[in-house]
Amino acid sequence: MDTDAGFIAAVEEARNGGAEGGVPIGAALVGKDGTILGRGHNMRVQKGSATLHGEISALENSGRLPASAYEGATMYTTLSPCDMCTGACILYKVKRVVIGENRNFVGGEEYLKSRGVEVVVLDNEECKQLMEKFIKEKPELW
Amino acid sequence: MDTDAGFIAAVEEARNGGAEGGVPIGAALVGKDGTILGRGHNMRVQKGSATLHGEISALENSGRLPASAYEGATMYTTLSPCDMCTGACILYKVKRVVIGENRNFVGGEEYLKSRGVEVVVLDNEECKQLMEKFIKEKPELW
Repeated sequence: MDTDAGFIAAVEEARNGGAEGGVPIGAALVGKDGTILGRGHNMRVQKGSATLHGEISALENSGRLPASAYEGATMYTTLSPCDMCTGACILYKVKRVVIGENRNFVGGEEYLKSRGVEVVVLDNEECKQLMEKFIKEKPELW
Repeated sequence: MDTDAGFIAAVEEARNGGAEGGVPIGAALVGKDGTILGRGHNMRVQKGSATLHGEISALENSGRLPASAYEGATMYTTLSPCDMCTGACILYKVKRVVIGENRNFVGGEEYLKSRGVEVVVLDNEECKQLMEKFIKEKPELW
């Protein structure tokens, strides 16, 4: 699954966010037919935003879609989702959340499962390194 | 509590959202000293937004604050919060969520309580009427 187009997009987003000086977390929302509905990265630093985490950015960049578009969808994210992003995945009834890594932060994985969402953790090396480097270099932003 | 400045601001936001042709749900985040940190309303229609619910708008309009700003804070919202907004309140560790009404929709109230957040439901007449009118007139948007 590390080679899924959705996951590759999420990692690209994380890299872009880091290159912008922001938190290197990216996400991509992929429909059941494999189409990327939207992708984005954490904009906390870039926009002074309290809510544009990776997953929220991906949902926002997907625009306002009919409920049917989210059916069977997968949210790819490079880091385990926080409580807000967990709730957003539940709100939109995504079928599956694929997580790059959960070594640097463990979010709402158990709650997702309890609400019927499939959770896959890839333990991806690049995702881990992006976050480790960020936390080490900019602890005040983490 | 119907006369709290935070609740009054949330209701004003809901009215404004409705007047703009949008979903009439408003919110205000109030610090422990009573200062309104941010306020906003649902922008789903106005911005084609999938994530700017009332509470998310209020958090976003509060800007990126230090964690201490949210300590002891209250989120006022005119309608029971959805799963995403529930998660956002948990993420920011608000102390209390004050809800205008939960007749038209019941969100994550029990989950908030299970995570240690105080929940107050006002059963406010204006909040109910704003939503009832909206759902009746624009069922396709609800």
